[in-house]
Amino acid sequence: MPKRSRTTVRRKPERGIYDSPTIEAILDAGFICHAGFVENGQPFVIPTLYARVGNQLYLHGSPRSRLLRPEEPGLPLCITVTHVDGLVLARSAFHHSINYRSVMILGLGRVVSDPVEKEAALAALVDHIVPGRSAAVRGTTTKELQATQVLAIPLDEASAKVRTGPPQDDDGDYSLPIWAGVLPLRLEALEPVSDPRLTAGIPLPEHLRRYRETTLTSS
Amino acid sequence: MPKRSRTTVRRKPERGIYDSPTIEAILDAGFICHAGFVENGQPFVIPTLYARVGNQLYLHGSPRSRLLRPEEPGLPLCITVTHVDGLVLARSAFHHSINYRSVMILGLGRVVSDPVEKEAALAALVDHIVPGRSAAVRGTTTKELQATQVLAIPLDEASAKVRTGPPQDDDGDYSLPIWAGVLPLRLEALEPVSDPRLTAGIPLPEHLRRYRETTLTSS
Repeated sequence: MPKRSRTTVRRKPERGIYDSPTIEAILDAGFICHAGFVENGQPFVIPTLYARVGNQLYLHGSPRSRLLRPEEPGLPLCITVTHVDGLVLARSAFHHSINYRSVMILGLGRVVSDPVEKEAALAALVDHIVPGRSAAVRGTTTKELQATQVLAIPLDEASAKVRTGPPQDDDGDYSLPIWAGVLPLRLEALEPVSDPRLTAGIPLPEHLRRYRETTLTSS
Repeated sequence: MPKRSRTTVRRKPERGIYDSPTIEAILDAGFICHAGFVENGQPFVIPTLYARVGNQLYLHGSPRSRLLRPEEPGLPLCITVTHVDGLVLARSAFHHSINYRSVMILGLGRVVSDPVEKEAALAALVDHIVPGRSAAVRGTTTKELQATQVLAIPLDEASAKVRTGPPQDDDGDYSLPIWAGVLPLRLEALEPVSDPRLTAGIPLPEHLRRYRETTLTSS
């Protein structure tokens, strides 16, 4: 991906990464983004689900959502995805930090009107949360399709920012008698909780058992 | 907190909460926010640490950060904090959702110039990550204070949005032979990793042992 001026990492530039595989891996490791848009000069930042299909990031929601509104040539958006990987505990207050992987995408939102692209995007949104889930559930009806707005943002202008590793203390601080290191953090899936209205005898599907074993442990 | 027009929850209004204790509890349960600001009509959304002290939310970073720049009467910001509590797996693709707690704050950023308020904010930023940590580390020097910009946003215009509980399926879908329920998610702390340069014999401090036992388990 070409390094663009607006997505060049300016603070801690050594943490900036611009290659597509890194950006795509960070996007594929999560499912919640924070989407920013502007209304009357005021920024709004909304947490929402996303899925990536090729070079497009998809969001969805109500047609009345301000984030998803159709606008020509497209509403300017900033989509940011962040995974927190650990607390970086330095010997000085100043050098405390966070290990993280984040991606920022700038672009114009495009309302998806083609029904084939729209259905594929909605299936991807479900499968991005739990791989294999969309094939196991009742599909989307025409009425539901009409009640859902889908927005696409191309991954043309994006950058990643990543911090890993131990604290970076000042040379003179390493001899201080203070514990320093990293407290790794990870999003864990707990035991699934069946819907109280679940029909008796329906087992936990394979795609959920697989999910707990594999999906959240890669980072 | 008075319900303000700009922070009134419009999509799924039944999920909107406006009382200060709920908003403060959601803020205090996390440490990473997504901060939105506008530059030349383009929104930018940046993940950054925060801490709450009373009615103020504090951010910090480089004085050259665009997010933290001094501007009269203050740069319009949107600060959003989101905790993902579970995947809501419905019988239909359409009713898939997420259990979450989020807070959105709108306000003007105020650069903190008073040294007492600034030092207190920086200590709060460290203690908000790991309670008790700031007293255990080397304090901030005058030079470090000058190299750090601290921004305050009042919690005057804020709202929370919360979803809990099982999927809400269409009446006709409850008889389908499809597993439905919630997969709870939780941010977990793993075993602390000592800095490879840690002086031998320094034990893991009490504030980190406490952290693993208590801090991330409340939701």
